[in-house]
Amino acid sequence: MKHLWHNCHVATLRGGKYSIIDDAVLVTHAGRIEWIGPRDDLPTVPYDVEVDLGGAWVTPGLIDCHTHLVFGGDRSGEFEQRLEGVSYAEIAAQGGGIASTVRATREASEDELLESASRRARQLLRDGVTTLEVKSGYGLDLASERKMLRVARRLGETLPITVRATCLAAHALPPEYAGRADDYIEHICSEILPTLAGEGLVDAVDAFCEHLAFSPAQVERVFKVAHELDLPVKLHAEQLSSLHGSALAARYQALSADHLEYMTEDDAIAMAAAGTVAVLLPGAFYLLRETQLPPIDALRKHGVAMAVASDLNPGTSPALSLRMMLNMACTSFRLTPEEALAGVTLHAARALGLAHSHGSLEVGKVADFIAWDIQRPAELAYWLGGDLPKRVIRHGQEIDCG
Amino acid sequence: MKHLWHNCHVATLRGGKYSIIDDAVLVTHAGRIEWIGPRDDLPTVPYDVEVDLGGAWVTPGLIDCHTHLVFGGDRSGEFEQRLEGVSYAEIAAQGGGIASTVRATREASEDELLESASRRARQLLRDGVTTLEVKSGYGLDLASERKMLRVARRLGETLPITVRATCLAAHALPPEYAGRADDYIEHICSEILPTLAGEGLVDAVDAFCEHLAFSPAQVERVFKVAHELDLPVKLHAEQLSSLHGSALAARYQALSADHLEYMTEDDAIAMAAAGTVAVLLPGAFYLLRETQLPPIDALRKHGVAMAVASDLNPGTSPALSLRMMLNMACTSFRLTPEEALAGVTLHAARALGLAHSHGSLEVGKVADFIAWDIQRPAELAYWLGGDLPKRVIRHGQEIDCG
Ligand SMILES: [Zn+2]
Ligand SMILES: [Zn+2]
Repeated sequence: MKHLWHNCHVATLRGGKYSIIDDAVLVTHAGRIEWIGPRDDLPTVPYDVEVDLGGAWVTPGLIDCHTHLVFGGDRSGEFEQRLEGVSYAEIAAQGGGIASTVRATREASEDELLESASRRARQLLRDGVTTLEVKSGYGLDLASERKMLRVARRLGETLPITVRATCLAAHALPPEYAGRADDYIEHICSEILPTLAGEGLVDAVDAFCEHLAFSPAQVERVFKVAHELDLPVKLHAEQLSSLHGSALAARYQALSADHLEYMTEDDAIAMAAAGTVAVLLPGAFYLLRETQLPPIDALRKHGVAMAVASDLNPGTSPALSLRMMLNMACTSFRLTPEEALAGVTLHAARALGLAHSHGSLEVGKVADFIAWDIQRPAELAYWLGGDLPKRVIRHGQEIDCG
Repeated sequence: MKHLWHNCHVATLRGGKYSIIDDAVLVTHAGRIEWIGPRDDLPTVPYDVEVDLGGAWVTPGLIDCHTHLVFGGDRSGEFEQRLEGVSYAEIAAQGGGIASTVRATREASEDELLESASRRARQLLRDGVTTLEVKSGYGLDLASERKMLRVARRLGETLPITVRATCLAAHALPPEYAGRADDYIEHICSEILPTLAGEGLVDAVDAFCEHLAFSPAQVERVFKVAHELDLPVKLHAEQLSSLHGSALAARYQALSADHLEYMTEDDAIAMAAAGTVAVLLPGAFYLLRETQLPPIDALRKHGVAMAVASDLNPGTSPALSLRMMLNMACTSFRLTPEEALAGVTLHAARALGLAHSHGSLEVGKVADFIAWDIQRPAELAYWLGGDLPKRVIRHGQEIDCG
C-alpha cells in the first residue's frame, strides 16, 4: 500500500534542524518514506490511499532514549512521606528508595510488570512517542534482569512502539552483595551480561558511574565485556559529582553519556571526538531541585549532539510525557525549542544507534511521524502539559492511541 | 434519576483533608450528593442507576481558580525568540509581551476567542477540571473586556464545566492611556466595571498590584467601586516585589490574593484574619525561573488556606494541566500532596466563593467528581504529565472528555 500524506507542513529534522518543508507531501510505502518534498515537486506516481492532514505540522515520531519504565510498585507513598517531613535516612531505614523498587520488581511476575509498563508506555505513545528505550536495573540478579528485559521485548511486540532494551545490571548494588561491589561487577561480567546477550535480550549496556553506585574502574570492566560481546555502551555519568565517566564513556565509543550536570569541558571535548551523544534529563534535574546545570554552552561549542529524554523512573522522574521534558529542557537548560525537538528525534535516535533509520523524515527512513494540530513547531515545547491533539503514524499506518 | 456510585475509595476533602472513606458509596440525585459514606452504612433506598467504579479513587472535580485562558494568538514565537537570545527589550520594541496579546485579543472576534478558549478548556477538563475561573484583562477597553467576559460566560454554557468570570480590567495599562494610569483607573471605575457588572458579566473583580502595573492606591479605588457594586475582589499581589497588596486585599475581605512570592508574615496574618485564600501559582514561578518562594511556613502557621492554580496565560504559564501544577506545588513549594489536592478542590472553591457548593464531597454539594485509576491520592501529584485514566462526573452525569 502506497500512502500519500498531504496538506501539511513538515519539520523534517534533517541535520538536527527544523529543516521545514511548507505545503509538503510524504509518500510512504512498506513502512518507509518513499518520497518527501514540497507538493509542487511531487512526481506523478500512483498511490493507494490519500490522507489529508488538515494543515497539521508533521514531525518525526518522538523518541524517548532514556527510560526505566519497567518497574514494580511506584514510589508515590515515599514522595508523600518526604513532603510530610520524613527524612531520607528514615525512608532508607524502612527499606525505601531504590531498594523498595528492586524488591517490588523482583516480586512481580513478568506479566504484572508487562501490564504496568504497558500502561506507562501507552501514556508516552499518546504523547507522540513512537520509539523508546527501556533499561533493566531493578532486578540486579540474572533472573530478575532477564525478566525486565523480556518485558522490554514484549512491549515492542504488543504495542505499536519500537523498543530498544538496555542492560543496566550495574545500576545499584543488590543487597546480597552489600560491601562486595567488585564481586557483583564480576558476576555481571561473567554471568549476567554474557547470558542475557546470548539470549538476544540486550541492545546496549549501561552503568551508573557515581560515588553511591560504581567507580570508573568498575564501569570499565563492564564496558570491556560489552565490547567483547559486540554491544554498544552508554553511561549514567556526572549526575551528582564529577568522576569523568563521560570521558570514559567516550573512550569506549559510547552511544551516549546521560545526565552530565557535573561534567567538565574536557569531558565534552572527549565526547565530541567520539561522537557520543549527551542525553539531558531535565525531569530528574527538576524533581531533585538540582541547581548545577549541565554545561550546555560547552556542549554546543564542541559540537556534542544533545538528546533530551524523560528518565521515566519511580524515584527521581515519574514522567509520563516527553513533551513536558521539551519544556523543561528549554525552561531549565535554556535549549531552544529547535534544539529540544532535535533532542527527542534525530539526536535521540543517535543515542540509540538508530540514526540510520529513525529520527528524521527522509527518503528511506522509517515512516514514523506525528501530525500535530499546532501553528508552529515551537508550540511543542511551549505548552505545559495537556494532551495536544495529534495523529500518530507508525510504519506508515495511523495508530489509535485512545 | 438517582445514581448509586460504588466500588471506590473517596478522598472527600472535607475540611481540606483527604478525609478518606474506603469502600465508599455515593448517591447522587438532581446533580447533588444525596448520600455519601461507607458501603456498610448505606441505607436501603431505591435508585435508578448503579455504577461500578472498579475500585477507583474518587476526588472532587478539580477547580482551577486562577486562569487567563481567553486570549488571542499565543506567544510560542516569542518563547522561541527569547531562547534564541533575543532580549526582552528587543521583543518589547517589536510590540511583543502582553502588548501583543492585547492586540491579538482586541482583533479577534468573540467566536474566534471562544473557539481557542474552548480548546484550552477542554484540555483542562480532560485533566479533571470541572470548575474554572476565567479573567478578562487582555481587552483593556470596555468593548474588548466585555467580549472576553462574554466568552467566559459562553464557555460555561457550551462546555460541561462551571465557569466563574472575573473582571481584570486593571491588568495592565492600555497603550492609549500611556502615562495616564490614574485616568485609566478612573475609566475602569466609572465606566468599565459598572457597565459590565450591570450586564451580569462579572462574578469578581481583580487587579494587578505591582510596580509595572498598578499601585496599592490605584487598586484601592477599583476595590471601592467593586464593593459599591457588591462584587467580591481578588488581587495579583507580591509576585515580583512587596507592596503589601495582599494585606490591602485582606482589608477588602478579598476572596483571594494570588502569587505572593514576596509577601511578609504580617501580610499572612492579615489574610488569615480576613479569611482571604492564598492562591499559589507554581507554573509562573517555574517558567520565570523565580527563586523567591512564597512563605509557605508563615501561611501554614497563621492558618491561611492555600489554593493552587494553573495561571494559564500565554506569557508566563501556558499550562494546560492542573495536575502538573500539583506536582510543581509539591516539588517547588514543598506542599504535601494532601495540601496540594486541597488547593485544587476545597480551597480553590473558597477562592471563588463557591465553598458552600463545591470543592468537597459532602451531602448537599454539587456532584462533581473524578474517579481516578490510581492506587492512592498522592499519585495525582506524583506523576509528571501524562493523561491519567479517569472518569469525569459532573452534576451527577458522566462526561465524555474525548
Ligand atoms: Zn537513568
Ligand atoms: Zn494571573
